[in-house]
Amino acid sequence: MNIDMIRAAEKRLRGVVRQTPLLGSPFLDELAGRRVLVKAECLQHTGSFKFRGAWSAISAIAPSERQRGVIAYSSGNHAQGIAYAAQKCGIPAVIVMPADAPQLKIDNTRRLGAEVVTYDRYSEDRDAIGSALAEERNLHLIRPFDEPLVIAGQGTTGLEIAKQAADQGISTADVLVCCGGGGLTSGIALALADRAPGLRPRTVEPVGFDDVARSLAGGEIVENAPGEKSICDAIVTPAPGRLTFPIMQTHCGAGIVVSDADCLRAMAAAFTRLKIVLEPGGAVALAAALFHKDTIEGDAVVAVASGGNVDAAMFMTALETYGTGE
Amino acid sequence: MNIDMIRAAEKRLRGVVRQTPLLGSPFLDELAGRRVLVKAECLQHTGSFKFRGAWSAISAIAPSERQRGVIAYSSGNHAQGIAYAAQKCGIPAVIVMPADAPQLKIDNTRRLGAEVVTYDRYSEDRDAIGSALAEERNLHLIRPFDEPLVIAGQGTTGLEIAKQAADQGISTADVLVCCGGGGLTSGIALALADRAPGLRPRTVEPVGFDDVARSLAGGEIVENAPGEKSICDAIVTPAPGRLTFPIMQTHCGAGIVVSDADCLRAMAAAFTRLKIVLEPGGAVALAAALFHKDTIEGDAVVAVASGGNVDAAMFMTALETYGTGE
Repeated sequence: MNIDMIRAAEKRLRGVVRQTPLLGSPFLDELAGRRVLVKAECLQHTGSFKFRGAWSAISAIAPSERQRGVIAYSSGNHAQGIAYAAQKCGIPAVIVMPADAPQLKIDNTRRLGAEVVTYDRYSEDRDAIGSALAEERNLHLIRPFDEPLVIAGQGTTGLEIAKQAADQGISTADVLVCCGGGGLTSGIALALADRAPGLRPRTVEPVGFDDVARSLAGGEIVENAPGEKSICDAIVTPAPGRLTFPIMQTHCGAGIVVSDADCLRAMAAAFTRLKIVLEPGGAVALAAALFHKDTIEGDAVVAVASGGNVDAAMFMTALETYGTGE
Repeated sequence: MNIDMIRAAEKRLRGVVRQTPLLGSPFLDELAGRRVLVKAECLQHTGSFKFRGAWSAISAIAPSERQRGVIAYSSGNHAQGIAYAAQKCGIPAVIVMPADAPQLKIDNTRRLGAEVVTYDRYSEDRDAIGSALAEERNLHLIRPFDEPLVIAGQGTTGLEIAKQAADQGISTADVLVCCGGGGLTSGIALALADRAPGLRPRTVEPVGFDDVARSLAGGEIVENAPGEKSICDAIVTPAPGRLTFPIMQTHCGAGIVVSDADCLRAMAAAFTRLKIVLEPGGAVALAAALFHKDTIEGDAVVAVASGGNVDAAMFMTALETYGTGE
């Protein structure tokens, strides 16, 4: 896994993925006590950065091989990314999703042409289910984060951040990344190390799912305790990946942990000040930038807003509870 | 008023305004029965396209003259655009706003450093108040739409649409524009006529404020009946402008009129499918694209999403009433 794979992915993604804007607001700067730049990946196709990795992986398979179809397991965003990328390529897709994933994510995945197979996330092993189905049906398995081609696709987000931050005069800052298994973080980390070494990636996770922060602090992979729950469904993975962890260890600063309440408040602030829709798991980085300012260094901070696939009910809870988010 | 003024504005705006993305979703395409591209000007600085015209007008005043300060009257979006542009230039701004403008718009305008003077929109004439104050305090009056430098700034939206639509393979389509006094529409019309003659601008207005549609149909300026109300506070102007109307007459197709309910439903659809926040007046064009499809021609349609400055309560009404907007 290296920068050349990200450069190669950048070429395959050109003209297909959106270059998402790096947004900001003087009101958020005031709230955070420093300049805040938000990479709005919620505006990516399918509402999250996951389309980048999905397209990177599928487009790298030789067209003749591709026709067999692909399979993925996902709580919802990788699912939609893979389903849409497969649909655009005209190939079949099977997605293994937790039965309690947000209904909107399940519905969208089906409507993008994929076959959805559900499982119980608290008693069944999605990796085992996915691997077994892949073999049985002869499908290409595309893992959500511990897969070099996926990491390479997510890394293109980092290439864009490096350029857009420089355009706005920012060369030194923490870059906060919403972190589940670490695919997005490790891809961004490799891209920034190459293009913008003054931008330091840092992971942000929800309380109860701070496996990456603890693994980074302890120097070895540790898992989350079982039975924890969080509204951040997109990033509640059990442990950092075996490919992603060493990359994060090399490049990332200390991990930051935020509460579900912080996420809802950040969603309200993004609604009011940036006019973008964030899901809880896509708001953890902005939550850290706005409400954990003492853990951050420097005059500017970049927060990746990784996804916006949220049900109306959850979004209304954020607005009702936190108003403008200030 | 001509394309050269828009080109000149483009140069003054470079590196200051955001190039907003042209978004889309397969779900919206399905709903509309044709390809839908949404120009997300809600992501512009201050949450609406108005910052373009504001910066265009202020940046065109010689620096020594600029120091006297500016005055504007506005229901809220032009207000914020002028306040922020003035703040960035370090000059004073006075804004005359209706007392019943959304509180968020009044608060934002004040927090961007402007002095706000309120008036009663149903009994007082804002143009008279603005002109009198401008003379009394020796300020530059920047009218919200019937002002060439403002039209030129808004027209840069059209330059971007022409390029972005071409990049997505679209050369023939109706371009639906949220229309109050016609500043945005006439600017876009001039830009498209020059750069993308296959893209035809059309106005969209709320029921009760369809002065432009009726003026275009009848060939002369007519006003709205007094006493009408609409949730589309951003675009409830009494009549098309004397500068903007002839431009719209030359270039625009028939105007389209949508209900307040259509707007709320379009806001819900934009939330679910595009992850952007629209205010009612900023959603009329998307509402026409999605729910008035028989009035539109061609395989594709462009809808300008002109602003997103909406209170949480109004936004929640849209989500509660219309769910995913489908």
